[in-house]
Amino acid sequence: MNMLDEIMTPSLLLDEVVMRRNIDAMAARVAKLGGKLRPHLKTHKSIDVAAIIEGVGGTCGFTVSTLEEAEYFFAAGYSDLLYSVGLSDAKVPKVASLVRRGCKLTVITDNQAMADRIDARAAEEGVQLSVMIELDVDGHRSGLEPEGEELLALATAISNSRALVLAGVMTHAGGSYSARTEAELAFHAEREVARTRLAAQRLRAAGFDCPMVSIGSTPTASAYVNLDGITEVRAGVYVFFDLVQAGIGVARHEDIAISVLTTVIGHQPAKGWVIVDAGWMAMSRDRGTSDQDVDYGYGQVCDVDGQAIAGVIMTGANQEHGIIAASGADAKLDLARFPVGSKIRIKPNHACSTAGQFSHYDVLRTDGSLARWDRMHGR
Amino acid sequence: MNMLDEIMTPSLLLDEVVMRRNIDAMAARVAKLGGKLRPHLKTHKSIDVAAIIEGVGGTCGFTVSTLEEAEYFFAAGYSDLLYSVGLSDAKVPKVASLVRRGCKLTVITDNQAMADRIDARAAEEGVQLSVMIELDVDGHRSGLEPEGEELLALATAISNSRALVLAGVMTHAGGSYSARTEAELAFHAEREVARTRLAAQRLRAAGFDCPMVSIGSTPTASAYVNLDGITEVRAGVYVFFDLVQAGIGVARHEDIAISVLTTVIGHQPAKGWVIVDAGWMAMSRDRGTSDQDVDYGYGQVCDVDGQAIAGVIMTGANQEHGIIAASGADAKLDLARFPVGSKIRIKPNHACSTAGQFSHYDVLRTDGSLARWDRMHGR
Repeated sequence: MNMLDEIMTPSLLLDEVVMRRNIDAMAARVAKLGGKLRPHLKTHKSIDVAAIIEGVGGTCGFTVSTLEEAEYFFAAGYSDLLYSVGLSDAKVPKVASLVRRGCKLTVITDNQAMADRIDARAAEEGVQLSVMIELDVDGHRSGLEPEGEELLALATAISNSRALVLAGVMTHAGGSYSARTEAELAFHAEREVARTRLAAQRLRAAGFDCPMVSIGSTPTASAYVNLDGITEVRAGVYVFFDLVQAGIGVARHEDIAISVLTTVIGHQPAKGWVIVDAGWMAMSRDRGTSDQDVDYGYGQVCDVDGQAIAGVIMTGANQEHGIIAASGADAKLDLARFPVGSKIRIKPNHACSTAGQFSHYDVLRTDGSLARWDRMHGR
Repeated sequence: MNMLDEIMTPSLLLDEVVMRRNIDAMAARVAKLGGKLRPHLKTHKSIDVAAIIEGVGGTCGFTVSTLEEAEYFFAAGYSDLLYSVGLSDAKVPKVASLVRRGCKLTVITDNQAMADRIDARAAEEGVQLSVMIELDVDGHRSGLEPEGEELLALATAISNSRALVLAGVMTHAGGSYSARTEAELAFHAEREVARTRLAAQRLRAAGFDCPMVSIGSTPTASAYVNLDGITEVRAGVYVFFDLVQAGIGVARHEDIAISVLTTVIGHQPAKGWVIVDAGWMAMSRDRGTSDQDVDYGYGQVCDVDGQAIAGVIMTGANQEHGIIAASGADAKLDLARFPVGSKIRIKPNHACSTAGQFSHYDVLRTDGSLARWDRMHGR
């Protein structure tokens, strides 16, 4: 592939063919269940990728993880956004500014103390904020228990507030990342649906409106069988997939759409090491496969065309150096296969964190050409 | 500190008083040994910080880890730069462009195959390149054995090339990061000096010029006792320090100049967790203290003024969420100490990787004011 010779390494390659296949498959999956997608933009942070997702259809809006992402994508015409990290009052002026300009931005919280602070600040700003209550369905991170009294108390506080409107309930089944079998995935998916549905039913039974019922994670989105009562599914990583998702069992290695292109700069024959010019500044420090069945170090080594080279991984990373070696304890690399000056690709543990290290993609387009797509970078 | 209320979280705080103390101490240390510093710019990637280092003096140039850093700092007037990652031939046109514009850029390699490729490309470009031979003094990463035959063979190849000029030898004692006692640090420092000095002596005895003899790492730079025959010391992290350096024993916690400012967005009382709006997008995925005596998770929690809160760390991180908890297995956090909406600071495991997640610093200046300093971000 002489085309790649022009690219300075390390570089973030995106295979559009593979990505489109992933986008199509998830859209078809959720549509078949009668659901709508609210894809997460935090994985790719790319207007070009968002446009492809929107073109395929089946979406009811998008999800962001920072207000800077909201600004970036709102400026590009995406106006129905869910900011899926608990809002703090200091951020209300930024939210208010987006709302005033016509952005349908929904925010979340899981506690009354913050709801009160947000309400006071929103009232000062003279805007109404759509607020969802975050639920905890698996003890993973934040959120209220769907069965608890606090859910109704928080709904009451929001309803009695000056500037907040209850928009519904949402959760993220982050606990599903521990699943390793289809049965475990099904368990996480069913629990996420059932407990979120229950929270919505309890709110409605108590007289509250609950228009949005939002769930999601790439592992559970791959395993839902029934979305009755769920208004939207959030997922992000599925667009690119990665080694962690493959380890969970919801993707194959050939479904991984991004890789880091790097150049061999030296050999350490006594150790059986190949030294490349991609370190953790390129791969990130994410070691997400370290507690999975197969630990890929900092990534799976592939040839320049993207074909995995079995048993060869990036075992170590410094800031701008990577160490390529055999993954087996006694195995040694055939260094002649990796001549100095040649290029290889590394498939990442975690697409969000590796992509987060770059400000653009070098895209292998469906027509065989090469393009550069910017991504939002920095805060 | 009401001043910090204006800062959107998460944010990268830089305490200028602490940083200047670190810069002064290292400059004094190396000057006392009669040495010169070539500080690494990859840690801070900031023109403001570089100017302070240069103002203190005792430098003979700077070190960069990418050619993008070389472009960035050359544009700001820094013209004597060492690119300390093995060069590949595809990057020669970028190097040549800098050299033609007057940048005194030195590059490195550790093998003849790459030297030949670089030479061919440099000859095509019509430039002469200053090349140092990289040495391996501790089996850490790349480089040639100082005692081996390959060193002389590579020096011969460079001397016989069309476009390369032998500039000397360099090494990075990355193995020193495993040191935990003063005796171990002294061992790594002495070995780095002795083996590098030997390589320079062997080259000169064989009739080669060896004007530059370059060593360095923050741990060994803190432990040198004699720099005879060494022309420069490279170090980078010492400017900010971090928990890893504290674990090695070359810094105290109060010497750590950067921290991430974050806001409490919720509590999980049953688990004793505080949820904050800084995740691994802010801290990075670096878990550098995980194999040290004290594992700080994703960082040490401090109050908003920067005072460490003993026994409280960031135990978990998602993209934009952090989990704050007690570090002891049975200990539970007093959540009332961390009210929703309040701010805390997190000191990082590794300054280079945490700072690498941000595009600017919020600087607490020596005069008590707040400033914004940009940093180079992205590739």
